[in-house]
Amino acid sequence: MHKRPNKRANNELRSISITRRYTSHAAGSVLIECGNTRVLCTASVSHDVPRFMRGRGEGWVTAEYGMLPGSTPNGRVDREAARGKQASRTVEIQRLIGRSLRQCVNSTCLGEVTIQVDCDVLEADGGTRTASISGGCVAVYDALRSIDKQDSFSGFVGAVSVGIVEGEPILDMEYTEDSSASTDLNVVCLEGQGFVEVQGTAEQTPFSRDEFNALLDLADHGIQQIIKQQREAVALET
Amino acid sequence: MHKRPNKRANNELRSISITRRYTSHAAGSVLIECGNTRVLCTASVSHDVPRFMRGRGEGWVTAEYGMLPGSTPNGRVDREAARGKQASRTVEIQRLIGRSLRQCVNSTCLGEVTIQVDCDVLEADGGTRTASISGGCVAVYDALRSIDKQDSFSGFVGAVSVGIVEGEPILDMEYTEDSSASTDLNVVCLEGQGFVEVQGTAEQTPFSRDEFNALLDLADHGIQQIIKQQREAVALET
Amino acid sequence: MHKRPNKRANNELRSISITRRYTSHAAGSVLIECGNTRVLCTASVSHDVPRFMRGRGEGWVTAEYGMLPGSTPNGRVDREAARGKQASRTVEIQRLIGRSLRQCVNSTCLGEVTIQVDCDVLEADGGTRTASISGGCVAVYDALRSIDKQDSFSGFVGAVSVGIVEGEPILDMEYTEDSSASTDLNVVCLEGQGFVEVQGTAEQTPFSRDEFNALLDLADHGIQQIIKQQREAVALET
Amino acid sequence: MHKRPNKRANNELRSISITRRYTSHAAGSVLIECGNTRVLCTASVSHDVPRFMRGRGEGWVTAEYGMLPGSTPNGRVDREAARGKQASRTVEIQRLIGRSLRQCVNSTCLGEVTIQVDCDVLEADGGTRTASISGGCVAVYDALRSIDKQDSFSGFVGAVSVGIVEGEPILDMEYTEDSSASTDLNVVCLEGQGFVEVQGTAEQTPFSRDEFNALLDLADHGIQQIIKQQREAVALET
Amino acid sequence: MHKRPNKRANNELRSISITRRYTSHAAGSVLIECGNTRVLCTASVSHDVPRFMRGRGEGWVTAEYGMLPGSTPNGRVDREAARGKQASRTVEIQRLIGRSLRQCVNSTCLGEVTIQVDCDVLEADGGTRTASISGGCVAVYDALRSIDKQDSFSGFVGAVSVGIVEGEPILDMEYTEDSSASTDLNVVCLEGQGFVEVQGTAEQTPFSRDEFNALLDLADHGIQQIIKQQREAVALET
Amino acid sequence: MHKRPNKRANNELRSISITRRYTSHAAGSVLIECGNTRVLCTASVSHDVPRFMRGRGEGWVTAEYGMLPGSTPNGRVDREAARGKQASRTVEIQRLIGRSLRQCVNSTCLGEVTIQVDCDVLEADGGTRTASISGGCVAVYDALRSIDKQDSFSGFVGAVSVGIVEGEPILDMEYTEDSSASTDLNVVCLEGQGFVEVQGTAEQTPFSRDEFNALLDLADHGIQQIIKQQREAVALET
Repeated sequence: MHKRPNKRANNELRSISITRRYTSHAAGSVLIECGNTRVLCTASVSHDVPRFMRGRGEGWVTAEYGMLPGSTPNGRVDREAARGKQASRTVEIQRLIGRSLRQCVNSTCLGEVTIQVDCDVLEADGGTRTASISGGCVAVYDALRSIDKQDSFSGFVGAVSVGIVEGEPILDMEYTEDSSASTDLNVVCLEGQGFVEVQGTAEQTPFSRDEFNALLDLADHGIQQIIKQQREAVALET
Repeated sequence: MHKRPNKRANNELRSISITRRYTSHAAGSVLIECGNTRVLCTASVSHDVPRFMRGRGEGWVTAEYGMLPGSTPNGRVDREAARGKQASRTVEIQRLIGRSLRQCVNSTCLGEVTIQVDCDVLEADGGTRTASISGGCVAVYDALRSIDKQDSFSGFVGAVSVGIVEGEPILDMEYTEDSSASTDLNVVCLEGQGFVEVQGTAEQTPFSRDEFNALLDLADHGIQQIIKQQREAVALET
Repeated sequence: MHKRPNKRANNELRSISITRRYTSHAAGSVLIECGNTRVLCTASVSHDVPRFMRGRGEGWVTAEYGMLPGSTPNGRVDREAARGKQASRTVEIQRLIGRSLRQCVNSTCLGEVTIQVDCDVLEADGGTRTASISGGCVAVYDALRSIDKQDSFSGFVGAVSVGIVEGEPILDMEYTEDSSASTDLNVVCLEGQGFVEVQGTAEQTPFSRDEFNALLDLADHGIQQIIKQQREAVALET
Repeated sequence: MHKRPNKRANNELRSISITRRYTSHAAGSVLIECGNTRVLCTASVSHDVPRFMRGRGEGWVTAEYGMLPGSTPNGRVDREAARGKQASRTVEIQRLIGRSLRQCVNSTCLGEVTIQVDCDVLEADGGTRTASISGGCVAVYDALRSIDKQDSFSGFVGAVSVGIVEGEPILDMEYTEDSSASTDLNVVCLEGQGFVEVQGTAEQTPFSRDEFNALLDLADHGIQQIIKQQREAVALET
Repeated sequence: MHKRPNKRANNELRSISITRRYTSHAAGSVLIECGNTRVLCTASVSHDVPRFMRGRGEGWVTAEYGMLPGSTPNGRVDREAARGKQASRTVEIQRLIGRSLRQCVNSTCLGEVTIQVDCDVLEADGGTRTASISGGCVAVYDALRSIDKQDSFSGFVGAVSVGIVEGEPILDMEYTEDSSASTDLNVVCLEGQGFVEVQGTAEQTPFSRDEFNALLDLADHGIQQIIKQQREAVALET
Repeated sequence: MHKRPNKRANNELRSISITRRYTSHAAGSVLIECGNTRVLCTASVSHDVPRFMRGRGEGWVTAEYGMLPGSTPNGRVDREAARGKQASRTVEIQRLIGRSLRQCVNSTCLGEVTIQVDCDVLEADGGTRTASISGGCVAVYDALRSIDKQDSFSGFVGAVSVGIVEGEPILDMEYTEDSSASTDLNVVCLEGQGFVEVQGTAEQTPFSRDEFNALLDLADHGIQQIIKQQREAVALET
């Protein structure tokens, strides 16, 4: 049976901390900490949209993701700006984040405005892409407020990773668990509305429909709590 | 109610054709056609593995994906080689293909050999990434045979896209359906073993657990038939 | 004395097949097969011209060339899109194709329209650049028809490679001949008008004026037949 | 006469905070805050040196610099990794940081070890390059300790910017001052040894020898205090 | 009838000047001036060959070409190093130069040595690629001498451009002629041995066999004189 | 005590030669030779400014720097255009040149015009960046004259390198001195106005305030003479 670090229960999230206004220039700036994973999510506003969107009267949300070179547990990773290219893992992750965060904004109501979300990992200990989504959503909320567009906010989007480790479904894997998981599933939900993204991968052996269902149950349980924390974070100070 | 092109039933695949030895130089060379979607999948063998794998005695499978500039329904797409960069959609797709095809090979049994699969879309009409996986798997099979390593083949990996169009779950979406789908789900299974990849995206509105289950049922139904066709293709000539 | 594969005579072309409408989206789509060499040539139309051409009322024809990674006889070649750069051989070839195909269009008559030709090698067995030109010309023809601009077509452009192998001038070299040729010459002619491009290279030893003349005679002989086949291909279905 | 924000005296530093072990994976990890400017400096150790250094038995120190996209006061800056290129300002700054930090290590004593320092700006309010040097030096100190090489540490390197604003020399410019300065000077000193780098630029009008001397005096005054704070930071916990 | 600038006869070369040892570091350094066209050709020696050549005991000759941004008559051209990419015209030219200069070296006799020739255009007035070949050949000669490998020199390679302007074949076109030529032909010969490269392009209308022959005659006449000048240049000082 | 090559005194410049109109196409074209260092500086005029400057009615001056591959004493350097990237040293140098040359132009008086200066090193023997500035300034002067904007010229900008070699301050270091200098200082002055740039680096050990003052005195002495030569160069022919 899998013993989790720090005696966490299989269905227990790591402690989450959401700090708004972590930096002062960006319209939304959120430091999200999930255990040792720390991601700085900033949301910037520009009163324009990409060329392929112009003239429709709709807004756009997009995201970029990066890891600071010293943020990872297995030695320094190369700086992508210096290599001249984003790693393919980075590209895959930022597409997931972008699609997820587009669901928390009603683009028609927003008008021709772009919200650009930057998720930069200060410290990585598993679950950086889901932390980016959960934290990024709060940054989007603050960015919309900064331009008096709260009404374009569709609701909070929460995300979590679940997986099967030593045969047991567990919630919110940290790095050591993630590296030994046989299945890895990232789930994103929009508050009160259902699934936004589901990405499951058999890391070692394929997974069954039953295992999949057990993982979705766990994810659902975790995301409820994450959305509760997002709500609390924005309630603290308005 | 959604009327499908060509009076297809909602749970009906397009006709599939798998042509082996489509070209002669690559160890495996498969043209897969799913309706109007046509992908050329070649598998090449090299007796070496990437640096991060060396010395473990294990093999490696990797994939690249590309669309010919004239292959798409909405006008020519830029040649990525000329732009100097693969589009982020391309990167995301080829990571999915690579992870999926690694599941059809027993890497320990293979030894330090790399199978490189290239999936090039000659004509796109929806479902190019899943066709790439289904066709690529047959190319991998032939590549393993070419080096007398059939025993490293773990089984066929079949993939299909399903989605919700006008409220109805449908199997194997073609381009016009895909563009209007509210949910898009790609499912990959290993023959007799379960899920390899599940990637679902809410294109417009979030989807429910029930909808998700209905889509997985449809996908399962389709993948059974695809794997049957893969089996037939390799049985024709041994 | 050089014995050609398949007992071909020195002045004999490989069998040529030209399949129009090979794919359905591009305005012109031609699969040309010269022996085992197979190139898919698509021609796309855009109602615009590059910046340096704007305002003159003239059209533009340009070409790009690529080899699928699994298309070559000597093991897989790197995908240029993944390397982030087109090989210098590719660049040289696509400039040749572009210049050649500009000769089959009367740009003044065409108006501010661009014909973009993509030549992608599915299988390489020598003569891919000349096959690209011969096939690309038919794709241009079809693209012009698709916009009712047949009158801008100046005539067929045919191309062939000739070379000296073991001291003998031979027509339409295949790969094994090409690799051992002492001289390699690519010739492009416009139907009834003369030379469009002549590119000769001494691969091993310099060549004499007499050898050059013998090669041009051979090329002329071959190009006549290629243009005949182009004419037949477009006559089949109008 | 220039009135500084927050009533700072012309020869007064902003408050400095140096937090060691800000993240846990890198050998040295320092958050330096100079007023609102915040830079995360991590130092990683690898037991190898660049090719051009191999075989000499000497160590190497190098640095990279980056600004998070949301860190700047004038709207989001493009992510360099996404643009595929570091801005030329970035390149100039990281060369300065690298040269400066090489002075705090005795490379002969270190042996064939590389210390890679990454300076990532979380929030920018002027003086990011000098903060990177001052913070990076403490990260180098911790990295050397992590491999028991304290004896290779040559001493603290402190850096500060000074400038002339409205005719008056001022110490430690913040962003609004920097943008209106007629002269901008960055000075780097090694504790007890003298100048390591002096980079002065006439932003508007050239500066005189007298002005230059006044600026150097101010810088010297500031750097003394910075080095004191570096010393205190490492004394707190050994 | 075409009147040439400076009353040059149609079969007359511009005055040629070949200055050896123009710079001092490279093994061969030649400034070649053909009228106003000026190209600096340096040849560097390295005692290694590219990976694909290793172990055969043969040498290698390669070339790169560039135009200084201010060298051209039609306004500044972008610096390719700043754009991050060589223009396709540059690539095509440097492949031609490289193939041509390989003919002046007996690579088997040379041993595993690389001669790298750099041809940088200081001022462009037509014929830069052929001047690069003619000048580069002298630089190769000097580079071979610098390592006592004169015996690997196969003979001088001379190159010239010829074309048809206003219906008349002319030798050694300058820029204004080149821009109005209907046919442009570059010819490269190895002293006493025949053709090394022949590249003819119909700029406006196709050209006939007769025109082609007239151009080759002109080119032959010009190349004889160029090789004579190359011989004189190396005879002056040994 | 340091013995300089060619018995130069410590406060003696190498002989300087400034050749205007070295090439004919660029508006300003200056070959500057300082001893064996030779840099071709061309200045081109365009009647436009970069996007970030538009609408202000001001001009812009910018610079690029490059070394020809065969120009350096330690073997060929890679061509940056072929590597696809400018070296970081190049970037740092061209920023210095650009800032320096902006000081010799009154941008308000110039109007929306860009002067682009290209400094290409034909031969390097130390001091290439300062020679680029001193020569580039004369090219800017000529470019302004070519568009009748002499009145926008603020005065000559002269630059020199000074350093400490074997404990002695010396003026205008050549390559062998530069490589063994313990301190390297580049100084740029605007005629009669003071410092434009001061960039000092401790190559080995830090330098003191006294050493710094001695170096500035030397630089001042040298720059006076350089500006005198610039004046003479432009006086020769008006």
